[in-house]
Amino acid sequence: MSNFTYLNIEKAYQAIHQKLIKTPLVSNDYINKLLGAKIYFKLENLQKTGSFKLRGATYKVSKLSKEQKLKGIVAYSSGNHAQAVAYACLEEGISAKIIMPKDAPKIKIENTQKLKAQIIFYDRANESREKIGEEIASHENRTIIKPYDDYDVIAGQGTAAFEISQELNNISVIPDIYLCCCGGGGLIAGTSTYLKHKYPNILSYAAEPFGFDDTKKSLDSKRIIANESGFTSICDAIVTPQPGKMTFPINLRNLSGGVVVDDEEVKQSIKILAEHLKIVAEPGGAVAATAALTKKIDIKNKTVVVMISGGNIDLDVFCSL
Amino acid sequence: MSNFTYLNIEKAYQAIHQKLIKTPLVSNDYINKLLGAKIYFKLENLQKTGSFKLRGATYKVSKLSKEQKLKGIVAYSSGNHAQAVAYACLEEGISAKIIMPKDAPKIKIENTQKLKAQIIFYDRANESREKIGEEIASHENRTIIKPYDDYDVIAGQGTAAFEISQELNNISVIPDIYLCCCGGGGLIAGTSTYLKHKYPNILSYAAEPFGFDDTKKSLDSKRIIANESGFTSICDAIVTPQPGKMTFPINLRNLSGGVVVDDEEVKQSIKILAEHLKIVAEPGGAVAATAALTKKIDIKNKTVVVMISGGNIDLDVFCSL
Repeated sequence: MSNFTYLNIEKAYQAIHQKLIKTPLVSNDYINKLLGAKIYFKLENLQKTGSFKLRGATYKVSKLSKEQKLKGIVAYSSGNHAQAVAYACLEEGISAKIIMPKDAPKIKIENTQKLKAQIIFYDRANESREKIGEEIASHENRTIIKPYDDYDVIAGQGTAAFEISQELNNISVIPDIYLCCCGGGGLIAGTSTYLKHKYPNILSYAAEPFGFDDTKKSLDSKRIIANESGFTSICDAIVTPQPGKMTFPINLRNLSGGVVVDDEEVKQSIKILAEHLKIVAEPGGAVAATAALTKKIDIKNKTVVVMISGGNIDLDVFCSL
Repeated sequence: MSNFTYLNIEKAYQAIHQKLIKTPLVSNDYINKLLGAKIYFKLENLQKTGSFKLRGATYKVSKLSKEQKLKGIVAYSSGNHAQAVAYACLEEGISAKIIMPKDAPKIKIENTQKLKAQIIFYDRANESREKIGEEIASHENRTIIKPYDDYDVIAGQGTAAFEISQELNNISVIPDIYLCCCGGGGLIAGTSTYLKHKYPNILSYAAEPFGFDDTKKSLDSKRIIANESGFTSICDAIVTPQPGKMTFPINLRNLSGGVVVDDEEVKQSIKILAEHLKIVAEPGGAVAATAALTKKIDIKNKTVVVMISGGNIDLDVFCSL
C-alpha cells in the first residue's frame, strides 16, 4: 500500500485549496428527526464541475512536470472525472483528451466539451477505455490521469475530509460513522484515511449500487473481487468493474464494511434530498445518503457524516424520478 | 424609523445563532463566467424550515414573555413564515395558530402541519389575513407574530448578513452589490442594514416579480405605493400588497433601487440554479438570482452577493418548470 497516509492529504490540501470551493457541511432537521441521528452532509455536488473529482484532478495536474504539461494528458471517465480533468487542464493551458462512454449523461458530455477537452467516445460493452487510453498515451506521449488508481488522485479526493474535520472541529462535533459512495474507491480511500487519523474510532462504510458491490464483496473476502456482468444501474458515476489496485488495500485497512442500495431506493433519496435538503444530487452522489435513509446501517443516536459526491444529473432524468 | 441599526442585528445574532444553520455562501464558476462577475449566493434555502424566515421567527419567539408564551401566538403567512413560526413555537412548547391562504403550495401547508401548528385557511381574494389574525389575537389573548413589520423580526432576518460578512471576511472579499428578493421587505431591510454597516459603499437592490414591484415604485417615489390589483405570479412567497410601514423607511434609506423580473425569467433561473449550482430554489427565492442572471442590473466585473431566500417548492411544480 506504499506509504499513503493522512500526510499525503494535508500536502495535497496545501497545494490545491485555493483552487477549490470549500464545500458546505450541512445538517437537516427533518432528516435528523426521521432517522433519529445527527447527519452532516458534505455537499461535493456544490464543488466546481459538480463533483469531488476536481480535487484529485487538480492535485494530479499540479504535480505534472513542465514537459508533461506541454505534451498533454489523456484520461478516461464516465463523466465526473472527465469534467474535472478538463477543468484543471483548461486552467493550466494543457491539452486534454478524454475517453468517455457513448451513453454518459448529456450534462457530463456537454460540460466536458465546454471545457475544451477533446472527447473520444467508446462503447462500454465492447471496448476497454484503459486500452484506448494507453494507446493514445503511448502514441502521443500524453500522461494518463487515472480516475482513482493513483496516490495523488486519492490524496486530492481526501482533501474533502480535511474540510469536514475543520468544520466539525468548529462546532466541537466528533463523528461516529462515515458513509461514502464507492466506485473505484478513490474518494473513500482518501477521505477515510483522513477521518481515521482525526477520529480513530470512526466507522467508515462504502455504499454501492446493487450489482456493483465489488468493494463490499472484496472487503468481506479480503481480496479484490470483480462484479459479475449483466447488471445495470442509474448510478453511472460509480459502476466500475472492480476495486482499484491502489485504493483497495487502503480501503481494506480503513473500512468497516459495505452497504448495498438499489436504484429505487436511490431515486427516493434523490427526492428526499431535493425536498428537504434543497439540493440536486446525481444517483451515484446520493448512494451514501441512501444507505442512511434506508437505515441499512444502524445509525440511531449516532453522529454520521454522509458524502454527497456529485450533482451532475440531466434535469429531465432528475424530474423523471 | 425608530433606532433600528446594525446593533439590533448583532444582538439578535447573539441570541439565536445556536438555533440556526449557518447557511453556506457559495460561488459557481459557470455562473461567474456567464455573467463576467463574481457572485456569492447565500443559501437560505438550506436553512431549517427551508427559508430565512426561521431567523426572524426564532428571535421574536425568544423575546416573548413567559405569559405571552403561555397564551400562545397567532401568525399569518403565505407559507415560509408559517413554517418558521410553527418550528420556533414547537421548540418552545408554545401553541401556534397560523393563518394561511388556501392556495399555498402543498409543501408549505404540509410542513406547517407537521410542526403541530393549527392552520386557519383564508381566501386571498376576499378575506384579510390581518383582520382574521387580529380577531384571534384579541379573543384568545394571543400575541401576533407579523411576517415583516416588526423590528425584532427584521433584526432576526438581518442575521443572514452577519453570516455573509463573516464568510466574506474569511476570504478577504468586499462586495460591490447586494441583490435580495423583496416581499414585505423584512429580509432586505435587515440584511441591507448590516451590509451597509460593514460595507458603506455597497449598492443594495430589491428584486421583485412583475406586478408586485411595490417596493421599486415606492423607492422611486419615496413613499409607500401599493401594487395594482389583478396580477398573479409564481413567486408565492413575495406577493405582498405593499411595502411594510416599518420596513419601507429602512429600505428607503438603504437601497439604491429595485429590479423587476417576470415569471418566465424566474423559471429559467430556477433551472440554471438546479443545473449548475445544484440547488432547489423556490420562485420567490430565486428572484434575486434572476435579477443577476438576466443582467437587468450592471454587475460586469463586480463582486455581488445574491440572496437565495428559500427552497419550498412542490417538486411537481419544480419539474413542470
